[in-house]
Amino acid sequence: MTRSPQYPELDTPCAVINLDTVDRNIDAYQAYCDKHGIALRPHIKTHKIPAFAQQQLDAGAKGITCQKIGEAEVMADAGIDDILLTYNVLGDRKLARLRALFDRVKTLRVVADNLPVVKGLSRAFADSAKPLEILIECDTGGGRCGVQSPQAALELAQKIQSLPGITFAGLMTYPAAGGGDKVATFFGDAMAALDGVGIACPIRSSGGTPDMWKAHEVANVTEHRIGTYVYNDRSLMARGVCGEVDCALRVLAEVVSLPAPGRAIIDAGSKVLTSDLLGLDGYGCVVGHPEVAVVGLSEEHGILHFDAALSPFEIGERIEIIPNHVCVVSNMLDQVHLVRGNDIKTVDVAARGKVL
Amino acid sequence: MTRSPQYPELDTPCAVINLDTVDRNIDAYQAYCDKHGIALRPHIKTHKIPAFAQQQLDAGAKGITCQKIGEAEVMADAGIDDILLTYNVLGDRKLARLRALFDRVKTLRVVADNLPVVKGLSRAFADSAKPLEILIECDTGGGRCGVQSPQAALELAQKIQSLPGITFAGLMTYPAAGGGDKVATFFGDAMAALDGVGIACPIRSSGGTPDMWKAHEVANVTEHRIGTYVYNDRSLMARGVCGEVDCALRVLAEVVSLPAPGRAIIDAGSKVLTSDLLGLDGYGCVVGHPEVAVVGLSEEHGILHFDAALSPFEIGERIEIIPNHVCVVSNMLDQVHLVRGNDIKTVDVAARGKVL
Repeated sequence: MTRSPQYPELDTPCAVINLDTVDRNIDAYQAYCDKHGIALRPHIKTHKIPAFAQQQLDAGAKGITCQKIGEAEVMADAGIDDILLTYNVLGDRKLARLRALFDRVKTLRVVADNLPVVKGLSRAFADSAKPLEILIECDTGGGRCGVQSPQAALELAQKIQSLPGITFAGLMTYPAAGGGDKVATFFGDAMAALDGVGIACPIRSSGGTPDMWKAHEVANVTEHRIGTYVYNDRSLMARGVCGEVDCALRVLAEVVSLPAPGRAIIDAGSKVLTSDLLGLDGYGCVVGHPEVAVVGLSEEHGILHFDAALSPFEIGERIEIIPNHVCVVSNMLDQVHLVRGNDIKTVDVAARGKVL
Repeated sequence: MTRSPQYPELDTPCAVINLDTVDRNIDAYQAYCDKHGIALRPHIKTHKIPAFAQQQLDAGAKGITCQKIGEAEVMADAGIDDILLTYNVLGDRKLARLRALFDRVKTLRVVADNLPVVKGLSRAFADSAKPLEILIECDTGGGRCGVQSPQAALELAQKIQSLPGITFAGLMTYPAAGGGDKVATFFGDAMAALDGVGIACPIRSSGGTPDMWKAHEVANVTEHRIGTYVYNDRSLMARGVCGEVDCALRVLAEVVSLPAPGRAIIDAGSKVLTSDLLGLDGYGCVVGHPEVAVVGLSEEHGILHFDAALSPFEIGERIEIIPNHVCVVSNMLDQVHLVRGNDIKTVDVAARGKVL
């Protein structure tokens, strides 16, 4: 049972991150990747905090992954110098920012899945002393971005090799959960096709937390990108990827109303927990209260239901919620609270809200 | 048809707000409230921008509604001096902030639905020269906060009247959609009970955009709180409350990939549009493209589906999306772009992310 008051020095709602758990999560997956000879390239979207990215690198990660140039700029400002930007970059302003970033970090690579993007990158890097390395994004079943076949990957790689300022460096995919076999086959076929025309394909990057412990079973992959593992969340618990004890970020909320039997209202709504369901019922799980369901959220209220015969809470009591999807929670908060033992340190979520 | 390029001076994804539409929305509902003798108290949660709150007041609104103290502080900093805080305030730090805010604005009222909240308010205002006015929140079918019966409202009002520093000023509810009759009955019964013991009940505040054009049909209500009407959104179009032409905020996004027939990927994901469905299919509607569905969002990508025989988009083309729920979109963005004719002005969403 979790009883109030918890963290009396903090105001609710807020996110509290257990640093011992973060350490364990980072170290455990680094050890797994080291054991299996997989290069780990954590995605910073989950924490959006340079200090955690540095901790991941210090533990042995090869570099980091960002999705937006704005995120990469924040990380570069903090001294991180090996970044993969897994996004199709388009438009003169973004290309100029990409080029400026490239010119100030040791290693910056991007992905592309179509010719207009490749041509734009070539234009922006045509006068670069060293070429921009591009990974071709492949759709291995995720149904999002990516070329649709190994043949299409080959053709786009040949186009990249024919244009100034850029060079082909490998393949990238964000697979569907359970899609490891499709990744291995797609990458293997593309590698053979590339080899047939003499194009090297040194980097084969896959990713995803749901299949994190099966990364070593996927043939032809050299690198794994992974974000959520640093905090973990309810969606990963539901998949059996982690346990409650591995969930480092909890939303601290307060019961503000007990209006009727079987109902409690908390001060964390969609502005903190978000509406992401990821296929689950309810909007998070209340630590220590399996009898309670988070049945609804409005922007500033969470609605908890439980058996009307129970009285699990008092008004003003604090509860911890493990969110369905922790990455999006990080993006809702300007600051989070880092806890180690009795120490609490409040830090900015420096790359929060970087949509550009 | 909406063809690119649109707003070449802006980077995507972003939110573009048509000021002519905002003017029309504000003026039309103010005229409705004036005609029917209803005090309008707009909820700033939709825009979170002091200049729009001031425009609502200048048009004739009686005051504003905020949900969080942090929002009210931003509005007070901008000179707004009549604020209703529709939230149960708990805890010494929040009560101290509430008191400080009260001492610097002309009018600040709060709501309460339970005794611990009322006692806390009394403690914080016991030495105040003028008492804090409290509205009692009533659950008229919304199933969120609120006392459950007119009798419970009476008893809490009597308690408020017995405590120092605070005074009862009326009733407040956020009704379920279509719940006007229940509001009228609950408020009427509570008013009669209060009148029976000589307690005045001058303010009876209801709210909500879904039933905005029926507010005059609800007996016993003196004030209507409403947020979304300033921008409108897809959920309100689906309810027939507004048309597409009334939707002032559109998310400008760019097609970054056309990976397969019938699929386009845009650069607006849940970090801009959010996962709010509000009972709808899909995550927004693409202006000018009724044949296209926004079938999925990840954090930085939106997935559009359409008939595989169609080619509605080119890579790099910009589209406008009317979001399902516009209030939550405002909360995702540090800045938005205000458009009038050919002029574009970029402003901070000053009360964004104020969860405390």
